[in-house]
This record gives sequence, structure tokens and C-alpha cells, in this order.
Amino acid sequence: MSKKPKTAINPTRAEDYPEWYQQVVRAADLAENSPVRGCMVIKPWGYSLWENVQRGLDKMFKETGHQNAYFPIFIPKSYLEREAEHVEGFAKECAVVTHHRLEADPEGGLRPAGPLEEPLIVRPTSETIIGEMFAKWIQSYRDLPLLINQWANVVRWEMRTRIFLRTTEFLWQEGHTAHSTEAEALEETRQMLDIYAKFVEEHMAIPVIKGEKSESERFPGAVTTVTIEAMMQDRKALQAGTSHFLGQNFSKASNIKFLDADGVEQFAWTTSWGVSTRLLGALVMTHSDDDGLVMPPRIASAHVVIIPVIHGDTRDQVLAYCDELAASLREQRYHDRNVEVVVDRRDGRGGQKFWGWVKKGVPIRIEIGMREIEEGKLSYTRRDKAHRDRFDTSKETLPADITGILDDIQRTIYQRARKYRDENIVRIDSKEAFYDYFKQKGKDESGFQGGFVLAHWNGDPAVEEKIKNDLKVTIRCIPFDEPEEEGKCIITGEPSRKRVLFGKAY
Amino acid sequence: MSKKPKTAINPTRAEDYPEWYQQVVRAADLAENSPVRGCMVIKPWGYSLWENVQRGLDKMFKETGHQNAYFPIFIPKSYLEREAEHVEGFAKECAVVTHHRLEADPEGGLRPAGPLEEPLIVRPTSETIIGEMFAKWIQSYRDLPLLINQWANVVRWEMRTRIFLRTTEFLWQEGHTAHSTEAEALEETRQMLDIYAKFVEEHMAIPVIKGEKSESERFPGAVTTVTIEAMMQDRKALQAGTSHFLGQNFSKASNIKFLDADGVEQFAWTTSWGVSTRLLGALVMTHSDDDGLVMPPRIASAHVVIIPVIHGDTRDQVLAYCDELAASLREQRYHDRNVEVVVDRRDGRGGQKFWGWVKKGVPIRIEIGMREIEEGKLSYTRRDKAHRDRFDTSKETLPADITGILDDIQRTIYQRARKYRDENIVRIDSKEAFYDYFKQKGKDESGFQGGFVLAHWNGDPAVEEKIKNDLKVTIRCIPFDEPEEEGKCIITGEPSRKRVLFGKAY
Repeated sequence: MSKKPKTAINPTRAEDYPEWYQQVVRAADLAENSPVRGCMVIKPWGYSLWENVQRGLDKMFKETGHQNAYFPIFIPKSYLEREAEHVEGFAKECAVVTHHRLEADPEGGLRPAGPLEEPLIVRPTSETIIGEMFAKWIQSYRDLPLLINQWANVVRWEMRTRIFLRTTEFLWQEGHTAHSTEAEALEETRQMLDIYAKFVEEHMAIPVIKGEKSESERFPGAVTTVTIEAMMQDRKALQAGTSHFLGQNFSKASNIKFLDADGVEQFAWTTSWGVSTRLLGALVMTHSDDDGLVMPPRIASAHVVIIPVIHGDTRDQVLAYCDELAASLREQRYHDRNVEVVVDRRDGRGGQKFWGWVKKGVPIRIEIGMREIEEGKLSYTRRDKAHRDRFDTSKETLPADITGILDDIQRTIYQRARKYRDENIVRIDSKEAFYDYFKQKGKDESGFQGGFVLAHWNGDPAVEEKIKNDLKVTIRCIPFDEPEEEGKCIITGEPSRKRVLFGKAY
Repeated sequence: MSKKPKTAINPTRAEDYPEWYQQVVRAADLAENSPVRGCMVIKPWGYSLWENVQRGLDKMFKETGHQNAYFPIFIPKSYLEREAEHVEGFAKECAVVTHHRLEADPEGGLRPAGPLEEPLIVRPTSETIIGEMFAKWIQSYRDLPLLINQWANVVRWEMRTRIFLRTTEFLWQEGHTAHSTEAEALEETRQMLDIYAKFVEEHMAIPVIKGEKSESERFPGAVTTVTIEAMMQDRKALQAGTSHFLGQNFSKASNIKFLDADGVEQFAWTTSWGVSTRLLGALVMTHSDDDGLVMPPRIASAHVVIIPVIHGDTRDQVLAYCDELAASLREQRYHDRNVEVVVDRRDGRGGQKFWGWVKKGVPIRIEIGMREIEEGKLSYTRRDKAHRDRFDTSKETLPADITGILDDIQRTIYQRARKYRDENIVRIDSKEAFYDYFKQKGKDESGFQGGFVLAHWNGDPAVEEKIKNDLKVTIRCIPFDEPEEEGKCIITGEPSRKRVLFGKAY
């Protein structure tokens, strides 16, 4: 038996993937569970990732004509009840406000008082309350399209929670738009999915597959839901963003009507779309390794960490040199912001500090002591490569090279994730092979089960349900890019014209 | 009787100030009341003001070493109960979550189900939940100072609400810091007040008076509260931001302890500080006039609006000219962003469009038709001056001049507000004069009562209470800049060493 290599995160991915995930989140100091059931605390290192997600997406939303606004956190119970599928989908897990003050309890402490006439729901999503406002704002076709986005917190009372991936409260953006024609609303639905795909691939370096959800996986109340699906390193799927074509369902429920150019009253066509702090979970699970977090430079909380190595009375000289390098790096522009540099001035042992930054996923680390200063040479290490691989540079040349190096890291981790995903997508044409694939452990050392399967399906929800019950495998999407072909449903043998994407999902 | 001049907002300020305020908010399309009791909808034009507030303040917070994070929206009832004054201050007006789902009601519709063991409070402020986390994070003096800020929504169940000024839900930032010494926490408390004052004066063009709150106006649980107070055009005071020195009250309630450099366990010293969407109400009431909103350029939702004047078949030519001007204006940098320009391409009458933008408060308006293009001359109007005052410029010269013009508008409206405020601060030394001042109508045509009064007070809360009951006048603050002098309390005649600031408050 070969000796297990030493890793900064224990257990490793192969040993216990879910526990590895929790340990990476903890070691990188991204977030932690709070004492409030299912709610997380997003710590500064994690929140700055979210700020970078917000900045990138917000720019793309505004460039496509969307405007931000803010709607109430509370939804009257009666509003939620308006759309039948919608209430069915959200009523079972929502926080209900029933009182508006606390009063002294004769048995000690405080108790709820001031009962509300109508209970309020803490928004799980805002179609109904925003629909109510849209109905007021929209009179004529001249008021359309109405393109609104909201950055907000939402609450869904999930039974099983996992940090970032499924929490009672989470942060997200929700876009809500209204259009005068079905075609335009469909185009918007698809445009926003394309924006999500572009952002997640280019900024977060996570490859995604775009497609449509089957009926059973649709947003409650939507006509169609389109999605981007990513593969995590345990080969499970993570739904990274969804965009919904709501048809006239919500405009009828909320009475969103307009006079068209001919003076005829019509119901508007609406869409909604959202991504959440769940994306940070996808980031962790796509790129991190057994030494901790790996951050894609484009959304990294910091790009470079400089670790001064101080012996004897060299402190002032070493720190001054580090600060000079930091200053010239910070002058460089990297995409939509300047290069961000941390100079780690804390007391403490060098090795401990070095590994702390490895676990936090900073793309580039540089240690600087008197030797580097005297020789006029520096070396850096890259988070996407082995820790012992040192790359030569100098205080004078690094600033000019930095954006190229960061782009190379971004490209490398994207391509690595893409290769891993593509290697774990298979085409399967029989029920037996399909069941075997998801029941047997994978053949590589990780022992992860399965991956993504492209297979034919007859379109029947009952077949989907059977597969889900047997294997916990669901249809992640009907991929847009999958070509039409003659095929037979792997379960029923009935004809099918397109393969759909199966996988186990988070 | 002279004929009343025509105004875009009716009633005017002098006729009915509270109603004028509502009408300005509506005409500028900043926000509106929602169907959810006391909660507002912030519309895009208003939300972009808030985004500009966020961007400006966030930068100042980060420059002073603060980091953003996010904490749960729910606070367990027992946490709120920990600090006696705090619970007293907030328990009477809070949204209480008691259930976590809805179920079918035999009488029809849905009813709350899944009662919680411990009710949750929707945060009215986060000292207690953040304190709980700080207690975990802080072990040693090396972990201090801990400097955290959160951008979030909060809920206080106010009985009487008014858009922006007092709403059940509002948006804010809340800073929370912990320090190893009392002196450092006091310094932080004061530093953040200085940042608020700088932002509100320089970005929002609202002059403020800095000072300390008297005991009765302190934040519940604070040792001292410092404040910035602004005067609205009806001469009432608006508290625009507060910063609290919490002493060891919350560290004792939440058990925030650290080992000092000598290994001795101590309680941390904490602060908290916040500003909210209330600032947008202050903005409206400080600068707007009887024609609508006036936006200070530094936080304006847009800096320039270009209104094409189209007759016959000139559309393409006029729009092209407008777009060229817009493009060269947008290349100019104005403080922390590029100049923002709207080209109003909507169909519709020119006059109506012109007045629409007046009401929305855009600093600079430019109308462009064939005459302007042929003559090679443009003129613009400024929102801080009469609508008929036209200033000559051209497509070639305006881009180079734009930041200077915007800065001049910013300076002008600040100085106007400052002059108005200073003219309405008086020093009063007798009870009779004090009561007369607040009971009689002002002598100018507005008829507004009172203003700010600097008067001596013996420091007794009972005196404060009497004045409040008699006149609805409160001590806004004990101003830092007021010199020490010998004086006598206007009510009791007892000696006093400093004047305090009195006013009626929002």
C-alpha cells in the first residue's frame, strides 16, 4: 500500500466528498452555519466572491437594458395563492409572519403579540408581489418591455440544508420582465440564460450545458424553464441558473394587461430568471482540490498574496520591498477591476501563512525575503499548479506580466474542468447499461459513481419518476446542442428524436 | 392678490409640505407604497440613487479597513432578550415568524402550519446575531479589531409610515466592530460619523451638524450615540446617520471575550453604525423645489438628458447628432464614474418630455433639433437654476466643460441648502422666547414653524420630556462644534456649560 500524500484538507475528495466540501468552505473561511436553523453567515472572504459575481452580472444585465429595483420582502398570503402551481410549489416550505410585536409572557420572557389579520410570507421568490406592481405600471404597449431585476434575500424552509447549496435564507438576483408578444418573452428567457452561461463559463470558469427542463423539473407556474447545468468533481450535476418563460400564467393571476397598438386589451407575456449564492458552492466543488479552494482569477477575492519572509532586523526593508511590488501590481487593470494584492503582514510562521493562502485559493503567491531582494529575483507559485513549481520573475517584470498570468490560470482551470466533465459524459442506449452505470462505482481511484448520461427518453413523466425512484437520477435538461437523431427510449423502447441529459443532482 | 406662478408639483412646499413631498417622490418616479402594509417599492430611478449611495459609502468603508459580510435575517427570540434596553427598544415593533409552512385550511385557502419551537424575529438591527458570531470568531487580541459591515434589509413594524422616511422594511448598511480598548472603539465610533458626514455633505450636498444624542434619544443598548442632523426645507430636523459606542454592553450580553497581550481575559468594546434609504427622503426634502426633484450630480441617477426635437423627416439626422454628443459626454469621468447620459428617444410631445425630466431632477437638460445642428450651437438648462436660463455651448465644447458644470451645480445646491439652514438656526436664552419661536409661524411666506434652536439645558431628561410634550420639540444633538460657555437652562435657570440643538424631528 502506497503512503497517502499529505494534503491540507482532510478528508480528501476521494475519501469523503461531502465532508471535504465542508472542510474547504471552512478552511477558506468562506462561510459558516449560523445558530439560526439552516441560515448561513457569509464571511468576508466568501462575501467578496459574491460581490464579484454581483458586479459582473449586474453589468451584463444593465448592458441588456435591465434596471434594478426593490420590492417588499413580505408577500400577503393571498397573493401566493393566486397561481395554483406556484402556491403548490412554495407553500410547503415558507417562513410565515403572524404577529407584529412581542409582549411580556407571564411565564417569563417574551411572547408573540399583535396578531396580523392576514399572515405574511417571507418571499421565497417574488413573481406574485412584482406581478401586482407590474399590473399597476403597465397600461399600454408603450410601457413594454418592462425589464426589472432585484438583488435580494429570499427564504425557503428547506428540511436538509448544506452551506451555499441549499440554505433556508440565501442571496440571489431575480429578474422579472413583461413583454407584448410571446416571441419577445421567449427571446428574453433565452437571452438571460445565455448571459448566465457566459458569466459562469468566462468569469467563474465553470463549463455548463444549456437546455430545457422536463415538465417535472420546471419552476412552479412556468410554461418552460431553461437551465445551465454544471458537473461537480464527484460527477453530480448542479443546476447553476434558471430562466423561466411564464407565458401568461402570472399575468392572468396578477391581471397584467396592456392596450396593444390597435387599442385591444391583452395579457402581457412574462419571464423570470435567477442565480443565487449557490453559485459559490458550484465554484468550490468545481475547482478546489485536496489542498483547499482554487479561485478563478476573474472573480477571486484577491489575485496575489505577498508573504514577507522576515529574519532578524530585516523587517522594514522587506516590507518596503513588498509594498513597492504590491503598489505596482495594483496599478494594473485586470478585466473590470484593478489587480488586488494582499501583503500578509501578520506575525506568525511562514509555512503556516503560506498554507493558509493555499487553502484560501489565491491564484498567485509570492514569498519575499532578503535573498530575493539581494539577488533581484523573485519566484511565484500558482494555485492551479503544484506548490513546488516555482516560476521566475522580478519586481520589475511581474507587473507587466500579471494580467497574462492571471488569464492563463483562468484558462487552465476552465479547461481542466471542461476536460473532466467531457470525460464523464457517456452515451448509453440500453436500460441495463444505464442502471449499471449509475449503480457501479467508477473505475478511477476516486470511486465516484456515474457522471452524465445522454440517453433517449420517450417524454413520459412516469418513466422519469421510475428512474428517479430506482437510481436517484433525474433529467437535468434536454440539451439545446444535442442533435436530432433516431433513437429508442432506454426504458420503454418507444421512439425518441433526441437524447436528454441524466445525472444525480445537488 | 398676485397670481400664483404655475408649478409642476402641486401643492407647493408652502401650501402643504408633507403632500408636496409625496408628490415629488411620485412625479420623479422614485418609489411608491406597496400593497404590503408600510413596505415600499423602490423604483429604478430611486434605486439607482441608492446604488450610488452604496457605491460611495462602500468605498469609504473599505478604505478604512472594513469588510462586508452577511448575517441571517432571522434572530431567535432569546437573542433579542439578552440586552435589556435593546429588547425594550425593539420588541414592540417587530415581525415575528411563528410557522414554517402553509397547509390547506378546511374553511378554504391556506393557513399557517408547522409551528416553530422558538419564534424568530425578522431583524430590526443585527447587534445580537452578529454578537453571537463575533463571540465565536474572537479569541485573542490578535483577532482585533474586527471591522465588519453588512448591506441588508431590516424590518421595524412602525405604526405610521412615510415613504423613505419611516417604512416597515427598509434597506441600510449596518457596521459592527469589536476592539480591544475603549479608546479605540470610541475612535471608531467617531470615525464612522465623520465618514457619514463627509459622504452626506460632499456626495449628497446636504449640510449636517455632528453631535452626541442625549440619553433619551440614544440607540437602545448604547453607551453613547453620535449623530448627523440635517435641516429639511420645512425646517424640521432629519437624523441622517448614527454611530453608536456600545461599550461592553453587547460583548457582555453575547460573551465576546478575548485574551489580551498579557493572557488576561477581557470583554471586547464594540460599536455599530448605520445609514438607510431614509437618506433618499432627506435628499428629496433638502433640494427639491416646486417643480420636482433636484438631484446632486455626484449621486444623480443620470447627469445629462438630451431631448431630440424632431419635425418632419429629420429624425435620423437629429438622433445621430444627439448620439454623438451623448457618446463624447459618456467618455468623460465625473468623480467615481463616467458621465451618465439619457437620450430620450420616446415618441411624445417635447414639452411634456422636458417637464418630465425637470420633475425627475436631472442636473442638465439639452434640447437638440435641426436649428441647433445647422447653427452648430447648443444651449443647456440647469436644474439648479430657472428653466428659462439657457447657457450657450456646442457639441465640441460641452464634453470638456461638463465636469466643471456638474461640480458647479453640486456646489451651488450645497451652498443654497447650507445658507437656508444657517439662516434658520437661532440662539435663544429664555423659555418664553423658546416657546414663542416654536409656536408662531415663521415670518417668511412659507409659514413654516420654527427651525433649529441652540439653547442651554441643564442635562435633565425630565426637562427634555416636558419640552417634547409641550412643543413636540426634541434635543437633536449636543453639537461637537458648539463652544463651551456660561449659560442657564432655559427652563430651570440652572447652570449649563454648552448649548444643545433643539428642533422638531422627522
